Amino acid sequence: MQEETERQARVVFTPSGRRGQFPHGTPVLQAAWELGVDIASICGGRGLCGRCRVVCGEGDFPKHGIVSRPEHLSPAGAVETRFGERNRPLAPGHRLSCQAAIQGDLLIDVPPESQVHRQVVRKEADSRPIRLDPVVRLYLVEVAPADLQRSGSDLTRLLDALETQWDLRPAFPAALLPDLQDLLRDGGWSVTVAVHQDAEILAIWPGFKQSIYGVAIDVGSTTIAAHLCDLGSGNVLCSNGMMNPQIRFGEDLMSRVSYVMMHPEGGDELTREVRRAVNELVAGTAADAGVDPRDILSLTFVCNPIMHHLLLGISPVKLGEAPFTLAVEESVQLAARDLGLEVNPGAVTYVLPLIAGHVGADTAGMVLCEQPHGDGAVSLLVDIGTNAEIVLGNDQRLLACSSPTGPAFEGAQVSAGQRAAPGAIERVRIDPVTLETRIRVIGSDLWSDQAGFSDALPGRGVTGICGSGIIEAVVEMWLAGILTSDGVIDGSQASRTPRLVRDGRTFSFVIHGEQDDKQITVTQTDVRQIQLAKAALFAGIRLLMDRLEVSSVDRIRLAGAFGSHIDVRYAMALGMIPDCPLDAVSAAGNAAGHGARIALLNRASRGEIESVVKRVEKIETAVEPNFQAHFVDAMAIPGGAHAFPDRVRPHAASGPDRPARAQRRRSKRKPPRSNSG
Amino acid sequence: MQEETERQARVVFTPSGRRGQFPHGTPVLQAAWELGVDIASICGGRGLCGRCRVVCGEGDFPKHGIVSRPEHLSPAGAVETRFGERNRPLAPGHRLSCQAAIQGDLLIDVPPESQVHRQVVRKEADSRPIRLDPVVRLYLVEVAPADLQRSGSDLTRLLDALETQWDLRPAFPAALLPDLQDLLRDGGWSVTVAVHQDAEILAIWPGFKQSIYGVAIDVGSTTIAAHLCDLGSGNVLCSNGMMNPQIRFGEDLMSRVSYVMMHPEGGDELTREVRRAVNELVAGTAADAGVDPRDILSLTFVCNPIMHHLLLGISPVKLGEAPFTLAVEESVQLAARDLGLEVNPGAVTYVLPLIAGHVGADTAGMVLCEQPHGDGAVSLLVDIGTNAEIVLGNDQRLLACSSPTGPAFEGAQVSAGQRAAPGAIERVRIDPVTLETRIRVIGSDLWSDQAGFSDALPGRGVTGICGSGIIEAVVEMWLAGILTSDGVIDGSQASRTPRLVRDGRTFSFVIHGEQDDKQITVTQTDVRQIQLAKAALFAGIRLLMDRLEVSSVDRIRLAGAFGSHIDVRYAMALGMIPDCPLDAVSAAGNAAGHGARIALLNRASRGEIESVVKRVEKIETAVEPNFQAHFVDAMAIPGGAHAFPDRVRPHAASGPDRPARAQRRRSKRKPPRSNSG
Repeated sequence: MQEETERQARVVFTPSGRRGQFPHGTPVLQAAWELGVDIASICGGRGLCGRCRVVCGEGDFPKHGIVSRPEHLSPAGAVETRFGERNRPLAPGHRLSCQAAIQGDLLIDVPPESQVHRQVVRKEADSRPIRLDPVVRLYLVEVAPADLQRSGSDLTRLLDALETQWDLRPAFPAALLPDLQDLLRDGGWSVTVAVHQDAEILAIWPGFKQSIYGVAIDVGSTTIAAHLCDLGSGNVLCSNGMMNPQIRFGEDLMSRVSYVMMHPEGGDELTREVRRAVNELVAGTAADAGVDPRDILSLTFVCNPIMHHLLLGISPVKLGEAPFTLAVEESVQLAARDLGLEVNPGAVTYVLPLIAGHVGADTAGMVLCEQPHGDGAVSLLVDIGTNAEIVLGNDQRLLACSSPTGPAFEGAQVSAGQRAAPGAIERVRIDPVTLETRIRVIGSDLWSDQAGFSDALPGRGVTGICGSGIIEAVVEMWLAGILTSDGVIDGSQASRTPRLVRDGRTFSFVIHGEQDDKQITVTQTDVRQIQLAKAALFAGIRLLMDRLEVSSVDRIRLAGAFGSHIDVRYAMALGMIPDCPLDAVSAAGNAAGHGARIALLNRASRGEIESVVKRVEKIETAVEPNFQAHFVDAMAIPGGAHAFPDRVRPHAASGPDRPARAQRRRSKRKPPRSNSG
Repeated sequence: MQEETERQARVVFTPSGRRGQFPHGTPVLQAAWELGVDIASICGGRGLCGRCRVVCGEGDFPKHGIVSRPEHLSPAGAVETRFGERNRPLAPGHRLSCQAAIQGDLLIDVPPESQVHRQVVRKEADSRPIRLDPVVRLYLVEVAPADLQRSGSDLTRLLDALETQWDLRPAFPAALLPDLQDLLRDGGWSVTVAVHQDAEILAIWPGFKQSIYGVAIDVGSTTIAAHLCDLGSGNVLCSNGMMNPQIRFGEDLMSRVSYVMMHPEGGDELTREVRRAVNELVAGTAADAGVDPRDILSLTFVCNPIMHHLLLGISPVKLGEAPFTLAVEESVQLAARDLGLEVNPGAVTYVLPLIAGHVGADTAGMVLCEQPHGDGAVSLLVDIGTNAEIVLGNDQRLLACSSPTGPAFEGAQVSAGQRAAPGAIERVRIDPVTLETRIRVIGSDLWSDQAGFSDALPGRGVTGICGSGIIEAVVEMWLAGILTSDGVIDGSQASRTPRLVRDGRTFSFVIHGEQDDKQITVTQTDVRQIQLAKAALFAGIRLLMDRLEVSSVDRIRLAGAFGSHIDVRYAMALGMIPDCPLDAVSAAGNAAGHGARIALLNRASRGEIESVVKRVEKIETAVEPNFQAHFVDAMAIPGGAHAFPDRVRPHAASGPDRPARAQRRRSKRKPPRSNSG
């Protein structure tokens, strides 16, 4: 072998382009590491983990001045054969780079799945990939066996081996000591350790351990969602959701806070409920993915401030009364077992930071996902729930506030309203001439004027109207000229259609159904609720735009289920968001949950969101003198130049009484009190 | 005040001698801190804690060029009066340095109790004081109240206040979050925090908290001892001991290891027992001192390797079989709650490092207390139990080993032997002419030839002979010429006294009592047991002396209860320790426990012992080829030139058969197998 090691070969790695000369006989993995080429390995080059697979280029590469041939690698030996037998055989052309030795010039391709810091591509077309670099990583380590001559405890020899083999000297928690000796011996003096932030060992397994997992969890007021990821690949193996069982203490968050105010032990009760639910969800998700919960080592959480405090066992009472003081806004890291989570006993939990008393870690997750601070364009991010969280800004400044929209967009406080669920009207069209309506309901793809509509309806038929449906109804009524710009259902149009019916001193509009109790109607009060909700939202946005001194935004992203569901044209026409070219407005999907997943898979993202959050200027709508004026101004329906440029309202009905009315409202209607959620 | 602050005064602090010029009106505490004078304060200068008391010198101090008068301090105001009312009035001449302002030249004396890093003097005359600098300290902090204008969570404002007021930015554990908001409000936005190593908050109390406590615990095979200390003063408030309840699983450690080997759940059972006992002892000690266990924030432990592993929940099985591998030898830090200790939930526990498989944290504590590495003199430290732990060396090199002495020195395996307890013979004298004996028993100050001896005996009379008694008996028998140098009770002397009685093929010597079942006798087998024990001890010492290449030592310290109990002249004459001037030999008292107390009160000592322990050369007697030879050589009774220079043996009885016998023993008698304890 002597003469062979003296001969040098040229090796080029793709896609990095790094290159170097190496003596014949050098393992490819060693060459890669010497050049700083990003190739993964858990087993440290023992041919066990299969993470370091590479593909040998074949042919003439004049650009690199080399001719690469598979036979310029040492032939596959016993280790690779055994690997193929234990796992699946290596794909043709694939080699374990730790086993294949250089025997001539080579072009070596490192496929994405072999890169340590591979890009994890997300499902959403417009979302950036995540650079895989989780806080917890596995390392296989071979420990010197104990013998009488060799002094040193088992722990000392384990830590020495980690230092020699992986250049790590992590802390070792006392909780792992009781099992250490048996694990080392069971593994034949080889163990895999899970190391957190290169700083602390979380778990040990005998021998080689292939995979560990993490869970990103979004604890909402209504639902809890969990995304189980393989920390080695970054892939989501399973996503599940469940209702937040706290709903029995109140649908909205303020009822839950009131419950705690009235019941001294209520906070603990709510904490137990949410932790139990998270536990159940994690267990179920792991079971669905065929993953042992003890292999879950890392969890991240996003949640609104009240759910955040309840999850952490902090009473939310202070968030329900002025001055709405958070116990903690910083990110929180704690042992999963301290949350009662039945995962690996060493698992660590990271809760993203809150932004302000009413702007939670879910918003922080949205910011991490959407990166408004990433460029100079002014982004507007909106997550609409009972409160709307609003973030505005760019790489220079970021502002955030929460605005008390109330539950109307969720279908509550609307006469025929309901949650977005099968049977709910989600789309509404009104013919401006005939005033006839067409609808579509959740659970069916057919419009009501299409053949087979009735047969295709979900079980209980048309059951109500959800948030997006009522928004479309109001805008369509306005477009059809039966609603004035300041939100009065125009009774003078009643002669045009039997759908406009008197209802005491005001009028209602029948969206769907015969004259029976299943009729779905939009009442004057319903329109007012939607106006109040959208005015609160828009007033919050205006406040931030004023503060940022901008009159328009470059990009609008609507986060959350509601944001995915509404047709942005209607949202714009209703005046929920500023008028702006339609192609600059899009749904962000589950941005909060994605933020949790980013924090799970990329350790640097944690520091990033922590520092971004510190920079965010928090606007407290409750004490902003301009909020009420903006709120009153935002009651009217603006239409929006970009929303429906082609549709012309047949009756421009902004009556002459408008200023007086607005004045009256200005004194009578106060914006709803600010609250979290 | 303007003109007053412009005037300067000269201020000298004693005992530090630091001096400076300060504007009139400067509080004395501020001047002290500016000069780096060591004055304590928990409350940060608010006149609450009283730690910063100083005494104003009165008179002419030409050496310093000043005339100091009490009236050069501002008069005592409302704060000092209120302090005196709440606590005890300040002693005459004492002032709170945070309240008293400089109004002229001053000599200010900082009494020891006002110094942060005061010297804690220990009871032992020859022991160094401990520099008080515990790992946990209290800080009073005033937090900005929450209001709508001021953003920031309660935690942020607490941490900001700690940074501004104390220059600390410690981590905040999630476990404290649930109580934070109420504590801040209960304390009127002032709280006292306990901070660990300046790095982490362990506990919070509303308002001002005066005192917290620590416990140093020595977990021995037989007894567990606890010393409760005030972490503010360093004083021991209460010391208690109790039997180790594991004794029911076996008196000696190896029986307990065997129990665990035979019972799969035995390790957990023994762990539960010792933790329960420690809990009980800590609770009892706190109750005796009138201290709330929730005010205990810091604990330190010393113990032998087997007790160490059992305390930490590690099976000791590996320590009972070759190669006797420790799970961990490093110091261990863990939450007290993880040991099931019912103290403050934030309390931290520090377990001193082990030195080797058979040389424990108790020996590390002894080293920390005795500081053999502190100077160039060669120290020999010996702690005698079932095993003897031996440390030899100086500031250049330190060596340690454990030698299997067996339980003879503890009174076991000796016919009339018993533990050192009331009624046990502890002192023995034999008249070399008459061969009459005099004894003294534990529990009485009278010798048996003094009037009133019988009346002064403890309840059950003379019950047996303890370790120190049997050692004195053997040496006295040898001095009286009725025992040969190689340990044969010389039957040829039987004509001189009826106390020498035939016992089968050998002879016994009656130490005390009439011819009845209460007679205390030393048999030939008893002598052999003592010879085996002392030979093992001395062989270990010889091994270390060989390795260090010294033929004598400069200082011998005998640690532990046994070391305090034996008369060093007899130990030397018997050949337990090397011959050496008597004034270089002394008892070290409870050196292990003191080491635990040092680690409790002085944070730097932890790093010190951790690095010293790493340097210690560990000698495994079981695999040392010379050990057996040394052991056989050490069977004889050397007398010792320094032990009894005035007493001449009437019959020099080292028979001609000695070399042959030694040869025989060399092949027959193996040293007992090495084991821990």
